[in-house]
Amino acid sequence: MAPIVLITHREEFAAAHQLCNPELGDAENRRLYGPCFTLHGHNYEIEVTVAGPLARDTGMVMNLADLARLMKEEILAQVDHKNLNTDVTFLEGVIPTAENLAVAFWERLAPRIEALEPCRLHRIRVHESRANMAEYLGPPA
Amino acid sequence: MAPIVLITHREEFAAAHQLCNPELGDAENRRLYGPCFTLHGHNYEIEVTVAGPLARDTGMVMNLADLARLMKEEILAQVDHKNLNTDVTFLEGVIPTAENLAVAFWERLAPRIEALEPCRLHRIRVHESRANMAEYLGPPA
Amino acid sequence: MAPIVLITHREEFAAAHQLCNPELGDAENRRLYGPCFTLHGHNYEIEVTVAGPLARDTGMVMNLADLARLMKEEILAQVDHKNLNTDVTFLEGVIPTAENLAVAFWERLAPRIEALEPCRLHRIRVHESRANMAEYLGPPA
Amino acid sequence: MAPIVLITHREEFAAAHQLCNPELGDAENRRLYGPCFTLHGHNYEIEVTVAGPLARDTGMVMNLADLARLMKEEILAQVDHKNLNTDVTFLEGVIPTAENLAVAFWERLAPRIEALEPCRLHRIRVHESRANMAEYLGPPA
Amino acid sequence: MAPIVLITHREEFAAAHQLCNPELGDAENRRLYGPCFTLHGHNYEIEVTVAGPLARDTGMVMNLADLARLMKEEILAQVDHKNLNTDVTFLEGVIPTAENLAVAFWERLAPRIEALEPCRLHRIRVHESRANMAEYLGPPA
Amino acid sequence: MAPIVLITHREEFAAAHQLCNPELGDAENRRLYGPCFTLHGHNYEIEVTVAGPLARDTGMVMNLADLARLMKEEILAQVDHKNLNTDVTFLEGVIPTAENLAVAFWERLAPRIEALEPCRLHRIRVHESRANMAEYLGPPA
Repeated sequence: MAPIVLITHREEFAAAHQLCNPELGDAENRRLYGPCFTLHGHNYEIEVTVAGPLARDTGMVMNLADLARLMKEEILAQVDHKNLNTDVTFLEGVIPTAENLAVAFWERLAPRIEALEPCRLHRIRVHESRANMAEYLGPPA
Repeated sequence: MAPIVLITHREEFAAAHQLCNPELGDAENRRLYGPCFTLHGHNYEIEVTVAGPLARDTGMVMNLADLARLMKEEILAQVDHKNLNTDVTFLEGVIPTAENLAVAFWERLAPRIEALEPCRLHRIRVHESRANMAEYLGPPA
Repeated sequence: MAPIVLITHREEFAAAHQLCNPELGDAENRRLYGPCFTLHGHNYEIEVTVAGPLARDTGMVMNLADLARLMKEEILAQVDHKNLNTDVTFLEGVIPTAENLAVAFWERLAPRIEALEPCRLHRIRVHESRANMAEYLGPPA
Repeated sequence: MAPIVLITHREEFAAAHQLCNPELGDAENRRLYGPCFTLHGHNYEIEVTVAGPLARDTGMVMNLADLARLMKEEILAQVDHKNLNTDVTFLEGVIPTAENLAVAFWERLAPRIEALEPCRLHRIRVHESRANMAEYLGPPA
Repeated sequence: MAPIVLITHREEFAAAHQLCNPELGDAENRRLYGPCFTLHGHNYEIEVTVAGPLARDTGMVMNLADLARLMKEEILAQVDHKNLNTDVTFLEGVIPTAENLAVAFWERLAPRIEALEPCRLHRIRVHESRANMAEYLGPPA
Repeated sequence: MAPIVLITHREEFAAAHQLCNPELGDAENRRLYGPCFTLHGHNYEIEVTVAGPLARDTGMVMNLADLARLMKEEILAQVDHKNLNTDVTFLEGVIPTAENLAVAFWERLAPRIEALEPCRLHRIRVHESRANMAEYLGPPA
């Protein structure tokens, strides 16, 4: 039986964001989000991990170049050099925390990876900085 | 149902340590710990990961600023710029390997995180250097 | 004679910015700045280097803790978690490229370091990302 | 009961490789592997993780110095400063993708770690670059 | 007078190389180059630094996007995913040490940068690994 | 004429240190050195840069393997896994700040490099952490 192997591709993007719940007042938003209530930005790093059986004739789970292309099409083309609060259709109504980004990116990528069955999306990591990271492993099986 | 997301906060501290089992003689300690039997030091990195349901109204599992504060209160305030063999009350009688630090830090943090139920402490990583790391996922459920 | 030694302190900040010359039209700004014409953001790293004679009784050129404090007062307190185009008094009318930031930060810090004569400000580096960096060594002596 | 802790040791090696399935023609290999069909090279990083009960008298799962030595004997001595396509006996007939390397390294190390029962090999990560990584957790239990 | 500012752009490439002087025998090459006499490879990082007056209306010394493009045209297009000993016209007859690469890359880029006078090429750094780097500042003025 | 090229080799070591001037009282030492007055430690990184004419027949300024060996003999063998305040003969009576280490390492290495004339020692960098670094370029020519 083919070994199950995980592959991870990492990309970076630069974006502005602001943490703000529009249903709360400024004082409450400032209490909740502190300095992140002010518009600022990050060099984000995203790591996408796909699991699948290792095809011995190619030495691949899926082509890492294809994974890179999917990430560019579904994520980077929408978020790189953008304001995450106002410029990204698939983030409308979403408070752009790293946690919410990880889930939103999963929802963009999962159908594209499922189409490559038996591969499946295994994990998405969103690093906002060296200090803070969010990670999503998908809905319960 | 809310997605379960992992968040990780990373901090650094500088400390001295020496690996030595006081019940063994010098020759046996040197055989066991090699150069680490001599007092030396590291820039440690600790990564603490908390798992919990993602609250859509805040976009958070728990506030990363609160996690940073807990890590500073429970760990960094005790170990940063200290000698781990002699200066840290909660490490008394503990040989300060990265493995033992990971478990000791878990025991400090777990009750503080449990108080934030339904969040739970998921993982603690202690990097002693680029080369060596210990990781603890807690006692069996 | 005391050896002349350079010391460098590094800090990070997260900010939003947009490259735009208000005297040019949108088309010209887009041609000039490409994707940077859209508001986005970075985790900036700044490295400040001070040169001076090494005092053998302290082992210091100047206290690195003082240099860190000056950088926080003069730079980080103004730019961290801010929009560099709109929120920073000392950047009013300045297009916030890394190059302009390096010069503007020099102008903030140089008088504070000159007051610590015989120390002098030697170099400021502003990293916008892993890929791009600007560096300023001050006006000709 | 002793806590189960994971320890990880990281090593680096420099090697040349070329992705090519000898049963396919050049055009098909180029379509499949793109620029990787041309001989090139990497600074690889490998992270080997071992799980086991933490011995409180040593503060260790297994001696990290022993893990480093095993990695050097079983892996680095064969692959560092080598051409992975032609110089490594245990990679004969293996297309040297990061995925295949992770599995091949597992097969080299697993028997050596199993001999240290109750320790067991938990995970092998092979980083080909900052962008691409493969990870193997072994055959199903 | 406009401040003189340095800008640096960094790129990475993956290549194979082998250190070998064809005028020497194998024994002498092995004595001189050690393990580097065997074909192996690296993830190289190159940093190119350009100096020039800062144009206040653009906030630029030269457009970093143009510098990135020049580096891709003159260097990366020739060396990325290649064997530096056999595949690169401008390295024919050159032993591909990091030192020789730094000088050869300078010779490729200097005329392109000089055409952008008053900018001038200031420094080229070639990192072969975290451990080893060569740096060239050009011929004496 | 041969181009003048700079080569840099980087090494790491782990050591304990404490900043303390024995001629001052505890209160004054604490005021001066803050938390660094308490024994702690670091993963230090040292970068040694040598300048010299590039020999076209070898492609080298000096053999990087020889530079690595000199650094190990003159520096790492004395300071790695040591207490810099008490265990290092050539640091006796020296307050082990990064600044003093840079000068002390220069004095150890300069005669060894001068013996390789026309090479000369160009720069020594001592990184105490990601945040703090000292750099020495030698006595005035």
